Amino acid sequence: MSTFFAVSTGPAGSDFLTLGAVKVLKNCGTIFYPITGTSEESHVAFDCVCEALDVSKKKCIGVKFSMSPDKEKTQKEYDEFSLLVENELSENDVAFVAIGDVSIYSTAARLSKMIENRGFGIKFIPGVTSFCAAACEFALDLAERDEEIRIIPGDAYFKSGRIDSVLKEKGTKIFMKSPRHLKEIIQKVNENNLSEKAFLVQGVGYDNQKTFSGEKIKNLPEEIFEKAYMSVLILIS
Amino acid sequence: MSTFFAVSTGPAGSDFLTLGAVKVLKNCGTIFYPITGTSEESHVAFDCVCEALDVSKKKCIGVKFSMSPDKEKTQKEYDEFSLLVENELSENDVAFVAIGDVSIYSTAARLSKMIENRGFGIKFIPGVTSFCAAACEFALDLAERDEEIRIIPGDAYFKSGRIDSVLKEKGTKIFMKSPRHLKEIIQKVNENNLSEKAFLVQGVGYDNQKTFSGEKIKNLPEEIFEKAYMSVLILIS
Repeated sequence: MSTFFAVSTGPAGSDFLTLGAVKVLKNCGTIFYPITGTSEESHVAFDCVCEALDVSKKKCIGVKFSMSPDKEKTQKEYDEFSLLVENELSENDVAFVAIGDVSIYSTAARLSKMIENRGFGIKFIPGVTSFCAAACEFALDLAERDEEIRIIPGDAYFKSGRIDSVLKEKGTKIFMKSPRHLKEIIQKVNENNLSEKAFLVQGVGYDNQKTFSGEKIKNLPEEIFEKAYMSVLILIS
Repeated sequence: MSTFFAVSTGPAGSDFLTLGAVKVLKNCGTIFYPITGTSEESHVAFDCVCEALDVSKKKCIGVKFSMSPDKEKTQKEYDEFSLLVENELSENDVAFVAIGDVSIYSTAARLSKMIENRGFGIKFIPGVTSFCAAACEFALDLAERDEEIRIIPGDAYFKSGRIDSVLKEKGTKIFMKSPRHLKEIIQKVNENNLSEKAFLVQGVGYDNQKTFSGEKIKNLPEEIFEKAYMSVLILIS
């Protein structure tokens, strides 16, 4: 029986891909990859794969999920995807590649559960998270041995108002998933005089990766907020 | 001028090593690696490297840190290490390999800062964390899109008593660094009727990796607590 592999590629580029992921991808006859982006179509995860191995003899299928808040609509997309996958699984092992690590805020995990519920075996291949890549970019020691590290969905915490108390709490906070409210979150960081402890990376691993810390956090260019989706904000306090 | 690379290897075995890490290691003339373990000497990070590339023409140096609570003693060890590294940096680029990711609870980060303070360039190469590997082993979706993920040093939170309130809080908790008190932490998990939401991996990536979840968390074999150092406990609630 064939297996569905949810394969983490790391944030961008083949440097973050693991040897284990390469092995799995080489053995899969079909590779599904997400097509993302609003203004332009992109497929970062698939680009990682193409940099690392020859996919010319594989069946490679791009899939676009609308990421709509309309659950009925997204469920319909997921159902269609599951049928496509099922069809491929009747032929060979199948991979779905996704940036970062598939266990952390990844659509890949949700899709995998649907495939599993249809009776197929699934396996997750771990990868480098964007926040580890971001922390390493600044050569950061994220926390003391007796302190916790919190990974926080920025937009959700901004909308619920929890952001205000979180910023006052001690310890390391990593804000991910802040495409809509990064600007307001950064404003609050500055209002709380935390810029000296703040590190922002946009598009970690990309050729045009941008990094900001300390004083620079106070005067970020507007374009940063326009491309906030790929940002990781780290606060060490 | 030569550079000191803190290279993450992932939890164990070459499958978690990234293509970028392999590139860096190939270019370094000297590789330092930590020797760990109490009853037996082991060098997991170095084993990863040897599985992935030919190190026969490189200078490979094992270093043992006592991990003593005596800060004067450990500082002396670190100082000696820095001098060794400095000597090698006069010849070529140098790597220090470490399991997991070097930005997360890693001695590699602290050592790197010392090398940097001596005027050398440092660079961190990110890797797969043990908790991502553990989550993937269970094919877990760690959190909903609006929930946070907390990485918690188990022993420290047990000793401070914070563990009790943490277990009652909603959200995903990942307990790392629990070599001394894993047994008591698991007891508290069971007392709080959380075993159905608990996932434990010991020695993730090792040949003898062990996984437990649900009912099995209530009756863990004693040997698990004897080798608690390499354990990751995930609670999804």
